[in-house]
Parts: sequence; structure tokens; C-alpha cells
Amino acid sequence: MTEQEIRELVAGQAERQALASAFYRDPDIYERDIDRIFMRSWLYAGHQSEIPEVGDWFLFEFAEESVIIVRSAEDEINALLNVCRHRGSRVCVEQKGCSKLLRCRYHGWSYDLQGRLRAAAHMPDSFDRSSIGLKKIHAEVLDGLIFINFAEEPGDFSSVRDGLADCLRPYRLEDTKVAHRQSYPIAANWKLAVENYCECYHCAPAHPEYSMGHGLAHEDSRTEELYQKVMARAGACGLSDKAVNRMYLAAPAFGADFAFERYPLIRDHVTGSEDGKPLAPLLGDVKDYDGGATDLQVGPVTYALIYCDHVV
Amino acid sequence: MTEQEIRELVAGQAERQALASAFYRDPDIYERDIDRIFMRSWLYAGHQSEIPEVGDWFLFEFAEESVIIVRSAEDEINALLNVCRHRGSRVCVEQKGCSKLLRCRYHGWSYDLQGRLRAAAHMPDSFDRSSIGLKKIHAEVLDGLIFINFAEEPGDFSSVRDGLADCLRPYRLEDTKVAHRQSYPIAANWKLAVENYCECYHCAPAHPEYSMGHGLAHEDSRTEELYQKVMARAGACGLSDKAVNRMYLAAPAFGADFAFERYPLIRDHVTGSEDGKPLAPLLGDVKDYDGGATDLQVGPVTYALIYCDHVV
Amino acid sequence: MTEQEIRELVAGQAERQALASAFYRDPDIYERDIDRIFMRSWLYAGHQSEIPEVGDWFLFEFAEESVIIVRSAEDEINALLNVCRHRGSRVCVEQKGCSKLLRCRYHGWSYDLQGRLRAAAHMPDSFDRSSIGLKKIHAEVLDGLIFINFAEEPGDFSSVRDGLADCLRPYRLEDTKVAHRQSYPIAANWKLAVENYCECYHCAPAHPEYSMGHGLAHEDSRTEELYQKVMARAGACGLSDKAVNRMYLAAPAFGADFAFERYPLIRDHVTGSEDGKPLAPLLGDVKDYDGGATDLQVGPVTYALIYCDHVV
Repeated sequence: MTEQEIRELVAGQAERQALASAFYRDPDIYERDIDRIFMRSWLYAGHQSEIPEVGDWFLFEFAEESVIIVRSAEDEINALLNVCRHRGSRVCVEQKGCSKLLRCRYHGWSYDLQGRLRAAAHMPDSFDRSSIGLKKIHAEVLDGLIFINFAEEPGDFSSVRDGLADCLRPYRLEDTKVAHRQSYPIAANWKLAVENYCECYHCAPAHPEYSMGHGLAHEDSRTEELYQKVMARAGACGLSDKAVNRMYLAAPAFGADFAFERYPLIRDHVTGSEDGKPLAPLLGDVKDYDGGATDLQVGPVTYALIYCDHVV
Repeated sequence: MTEQEIRELVAGQAERQALASAFYRDPDIYERDIDRIFMRSWLYAGHQSEIPEVGDWFLFEFAEESVIIVRSAEDEINALLNVCRHRGSRVCVEQKGCSKLLRCRYHGWSYDLQGRLRAAAHMPDSFDRSSIGLKKIHAEVLDGLIFINFAEEPGDFSSVRDGLADCLRPYRLEDTKVAHRQSYPIAANWKLAVENYCECYHCAPAHPEYSMGHGLAHEDSRTEELYQKVMARAGACGLSDKAVNRMYLAAPAFGADFAFERYPLIRDHVTGSEDGKPLAPLLGDVKDYDGGATDLQVGPVTYALIYCDHVV
Repeated sequence: MTEQEIRELVAGQAERQALASAFYRDPDIYERDIDRIFMRSWLYAGHQSEIPEVGDWFLFEFAEESVIIVRSAEDEINALLNVCRHRGSRVCVEQKGCSKLLRCRYHGWSYDLQGRLRAAAHMPDSFDRSSIGLKKIHAEVLDGLIFINFAEEPGDFSSVRDGLADCLRPYRLEDTKVAHRQSYPIAANWKLAVENYCECYHCAPAHPEYSMGHGLAHEDSRTEELYQKVMARAGACGLSDKAVNRMYLAAPAFGADFAFERYPLIRDHVTGSEDGKPLAPLLGDVKDYDGGATDLQVGPVTYALIYCDHVV
């Protein structure tokens, strides 16, 4: 599709109707989505517990990009484009590792953990190593969660940080670890996954196990009543009774969306386990199960579900 | 290829010459073929014996379309687009099944066997279920063979029905069952498969087993003589001695092509078995082997080979 | 990319800089590369020892082309497009074979080893077999190495033959055989493979085993000194002390590039074996190991590494 055709399609899209199918299928629109949305948004790359030691790194790969997320100092995490400045090779080819220098295996150029070129054999004297380095992109750590942004001037992350601080703090996510990782590749455009996450109308028919314990799957007065109980109980459990939604059109800056929304668990479930019973010690400063669950969202496509004793 | 380029290619195509390679390879031409030919033609979807009970259904999948072929009443078969009217999901995801309601697993919307919406949870009072249903497309059953057509106003099927009636009747195909199903995916444009079916010049070199028993593979006076014998014997065998060819440019309406053509078996073969000997009881009202075989064609791309005791 | 966009990209390409990424990735540029470079260049198809007997053939498949390389007489090798003139089928479908006639399995048309149509069933009397044949493309044999060129009027091969004669002769490659065949499919544009071959800056970091014995991987005065020794020793070993490079912009005609370049082995290696010790009897007229290795190049993308006792 040409730029002109895309603009006309956008202009002609009816509100509150399913998007025209080209939005899900046209390769030019997809490329435009990547450039205009994902390359300018805060994206979740991983958890700081995955790189505890200086020199630890892992790759975050997205669309055609590959990023080295590296702990460059005890209190510093860098996000470096995994593209050697000499001939464009991937510098790191494993999924994770630990090293003092990041060395491209093609011609041996080596970079330090800040991305600065440290070694390049047989270059003429006029070659200025100090002017060359792996391209660094923006990275922010929020309570242990590492977010990156490919834009030169990304939407201000401090709004996210400030907006979520009170709500998020008690869970002390910086003290959690990744217990299990599960990837579900979906042969569909990303918008279908987002739209799916944005509605729970499908929860009852499509996710019976989830619906067994989560109020969000049900629309009735009982759910509303339970919600009020959870809110009333928040303080005693060491949790905030606030909720916030600054997603999409309500975001403080492009790509810097965030939300922290609560809903009640039902049938006396206290967490997201199969039977609703406790799974693990309470997180951080949480003092007791409050009977609720939390949808945390940061950036346009990162969603987490926080329970009192674990996060998915 | 642009529409203009395609039109020029069509205009420049020499008669009685192989088509320009773009007709087999260009993705825009392929898409145009689907839209202009297949979406407007009668296509064989299956045999009524596959859905004997009310509620039995199977999927017919073609190009990007998926159609639910369902027995909606003892004497009624419907063809419903397998696309939920809510969010476009496939309603049926198995290849076949049996149920009173067709229920989309995504949000639970349920349709009856006519495609009418019967259940949709949490919709406002203003929502008019009766105005919504799975899109029904044209379906016709000819002696047990189910044909469908995606067009709003397809080429009249009664010409096919009338044109084939006398010839086809004796075989009573509505009483047959599917004994075996074999699919041969071909990594080639559909036109190559059609062209291949339309000539038997390749039969002798490419299909030695077939050529052993079938006169069509041979062009000689002996074959012509045998053909006359088969025709002369037809009446005594309870068969018609007529042949008809209304394919392609001779079709009574676009997409409503049909043909019923006979040719002799050779070397005393009486049917299409490996040794030419009987394979099964005679079909329907057939009284004896007549020494011939029949090419049945309905629509532009459905071909069957009828013997006195089975059909392939 | 349109033709116009490609022309602008070429015009805007900075010298001595990595090519713009479209040169490696754009499908239109790739197609243009095939048409303008590969279809007009001398390409190595195989070694004459692979088809010792009259009627022996093998397929050379490149891009979308398939070529039958056949020994059509004791002293003649032909390159025939593997496309039946009747309906365009592949005539030969195995990777190699031996036969007096090349027979298309689709409709049985048969060609002799010159590509002339010899048999075609059921054609009318007016059909002139002698006017029809498999399309023959240019083929040349250089010291046993078979090169082909798809162009109607390829760059003159005699320049290659003359330019390499003295250097290549002593090795008598026509007496060698294929001992092992190894294919490394690379998921990358061909230019990356060529660029990689054209520099040995990557050899030390990327190929430690190679660098152990080959001077080309090292840039120092010791290497230069060794080179002079190899050249001085050439005559006594029955080898030429000449080198020649007529590659790319220096080629005598488009697609008829050639080079014969020498470099020293190091650490007393005498050949390309793992430990540098002799692997096999000396080739042809070579009298002794000269301590060097040779890069042979013919056409834009055929490279061989000649040692005194084997070739890779």
C-alpha cells in the first residue's frame, strides 16, 4: 500500500468498528507500525535479575533489531545495538553471556560495556577509536523492570515512574526473579493480540480456568461489591487503593503509556493459582492477601498481572 | 503487476500458445483469478454422505475462505461462511463435527444451523440478534454431490442439473459413499493442473498404469471402433449413450460449466482397477459393464472419472 | 524498488563505504543482479571428471535456471537448458545420470546429446522436428574445469584461457577428480559472500585454523619475505612465478574476470592440511612443494585455492 492509500484508509476508518483488514495484513502498514509505534515506544526488555553481575548481558530481539542489554556497572544497565560498527555483523550471537569486552567474531573489533570501541586490528594511525562505538539507545529501570526505547528522543519516562510509584512500590518488583519463561508465538498481527488483551468479554468462553477466580471475567453487581471490599482492605495489606490509567490516547507522551488497575478475585481466591490458594511468600512489603489482582501496563504493549505473591 | 499490465498481457497472449509465464506466477494475477474465477464459479465441496445426520458439518477451505457445509435439516444442506460476525474468528476450528449450535470459542457467540445468531452474552437490549447471522452462500446438491458458489448471483445451476440429468441419473451417485480420500498438493499454479487434465497427450509417457486400460491415452482407429461399441451397448447396460460438453467458452453461464464425456476402456478392462476387473457392485441402476469410462466435469475445476462400479 | 530508485541508489553510493542495505535486501535489485551480472558471466558448473563417458550428465542449477551439463562426445561437453520445448517441463529431474537420449517424462519428447529433438509422438506431418531443440548455452572447459555463460554473446573466454595458461598449466587440473563436495548455504545476499572472500582481515579472528598456516591472514614484513622466497623457488618446483589479477573493473570483458595470485604458507606448512604436511601426491607437473598457495578466480564469483597437492 502506498503512503497515500494508508492515509485514506486511516481517514476512512469508522470509530468503534473493527479495523479494516489491511491494518492487520498489509506489509507496508506493518512496517509503518514498527517505525512509528514500536521504534518510538517504551518496550519491556527483561528483568534486572537476569544480569546480576557486571558484564552479564542478554539479547532483546524485536522486529529486525537486536539489542544487547548489559550490566555495565553495579548500578548501571546499558542497551546497545547489537550491530558492529565495522561491517554490521551481530556482535553477540548467543542469547546471553558474560564478558568484560563485547567482541565481534567477524573481524575481532571489541567494545567495552559502554559500547566504546576498544580494539580493532591493523587500522591506520589516523583511525580514531574513541569516535566509534556501539549505538546506545535509551534504557530505564523501573523497580527492576528494564524498559528500552529506540527513539532518539523518547517520550519522557519520568511520567511513568512518577505515575506508578505509589501503587507499584509495595510489591518491590526489583527483588523478584524470573521463575519461568513462556513464549506464545502467534501467527497474527500484533494489533489482534493487543485488542484481545484490552477486552475481557472473551474471558468466560475462552479461558474457563481464569474465569473461575478472576472478577474481571464477570460483569455483575457482585463483582463491583467485591471490588469495593478489596479497595477498603488495601491499606491494611500495605497496598495502595489507587488506580490509574494513562494508556494510549491518555498517555502523558507518545509511547510512555502506563496503567495500574485493580479488580477483585472471586470465590475466595487470593492469588492466580489454579485453586486460588497462596503460591509463594508475599511480595516485598505486602502484608496480607487483599483479595485483588492488578493489571500493570507500561508502554503500549507491555502487560503484567500482579498478584500478592507472584507476577505473570 | 498493475491492472493495466495484466490487461495488456491478456490482450497480447497468442492463441494456441502456452500462456505467458506471468499467468502462472504473478501474485496479482493469482489474486485476480481467485476473485474473478473461483469466487464466481460452482465448486465441489463434498458428498452428502459425509454429513448424514442433522447437525453434521465439515469445513470446505479454499484460498482464504473457510465454509461450514452443514446438514441443517433432513433435506437441507447449508453453506455458511466460517467467520463469526462479532470479531471475525473462525466459528468452527475442527475439520468436521456435529452440533445443534455452531459456537464461536472466542466470545461465545452461537449460531443455529441456518446461521442465525442465537446467543451473544452481555449485549445491550438494543442489540437485535435476529438481524445478525453467518453469511450464507449458494449451495446445490446434484445427485449427492455438494456444490457451492461464493457469488451473490451465481451462474444458474439448473442448466447444469438439466444438462446432466439423463446421463448421470443411472449411476445414482447420491447412494455412493467416500471410500478413500487422497490429496495431492501441487507446488504450481492451478492453471497447470487444469491444462494437464485437459489433455491426455501426457498419459502414455506419464501414466503407464492408466494407459494400460484407458482408450483416452491412445489415438488410433481401434479406439474409435471401441467407442462405437460402448455407445451401442449403453442402453442394454442401463446407461445413456449421450455425451455433452459445455465447458469453459461453451458454458451456459459463467462458472456453471459441465461435461459428461465417454471413452472406451481397452484390453478388455471393464473398470479402472489395476487389472481392469470388477472392483465393487455395479453402481445404482447400471445393469452391466459397458466397457467405457466417463469424464464428469462440473464448474471449471471439478473433474470426476466415473466407472460402472466406482468413481474417482 | 523501481528502476529509477535503483539508479539513484547506485549514483548516491559512496566509494569505499559499505553498500546501502537495499543492495543486499531489495528483491528487485537481486533480480537485476541475476539478470545483469550472473546471466552474463562465466560461472563454474563442475569438473569434467564428473562426466567421463559419453551420455553422462549432471544438472547445474542456479537462481531459477537448470542446465544439463552433458558429455555429448568424447571431446565435447554441452550445456543445455533443462526446459522441454513442448510445455516447459524439466527434462532431467535427477541430479545426474547417463543416457543416449534426454527424455522429458511429461509428454515423452526426447532430445539427443546435442539437444536436438529426436522424438515427439502424434505430431502432425507439418511438424518440423529439426527446427526444435533444447536451448544450448555457451560452455568452455579450462584444464578440466567447466564454465558456462547464459548470455547470447558472452565476454570472450579466450582472454581467460590465454591469461591463465602459463600459471595454471603445471597443476594439470584436468587430471584431478572431485574427492569431496561440501555445500554451505548462506542466508545472505551473494554480495556479502563475495565481499567476505575479497578480504582476509577477518581470517585471523574468524578462521584460526586457516590462519595457523596461511600468510594471507597476516600482514607483516615476515610474510613479504616468505613471499619472495616462494617466488624464487617457483621455477625449481616446476611452477610459474607470475601472478595476474584481472578481476572486476580490471576484467578483459564483462563476466570474463580472472586472477591467479600467490601467497606464502607459514610455520613451514607446505599445503592446506590441518598440520601443514603433505596430503596427497603432487599435482600434475609440480616437482616439489614451493611453500605457497594460490588463489584462482574465474568469472566474478568462482574462487579456488590451489595447493601443490590438492585444490579446494
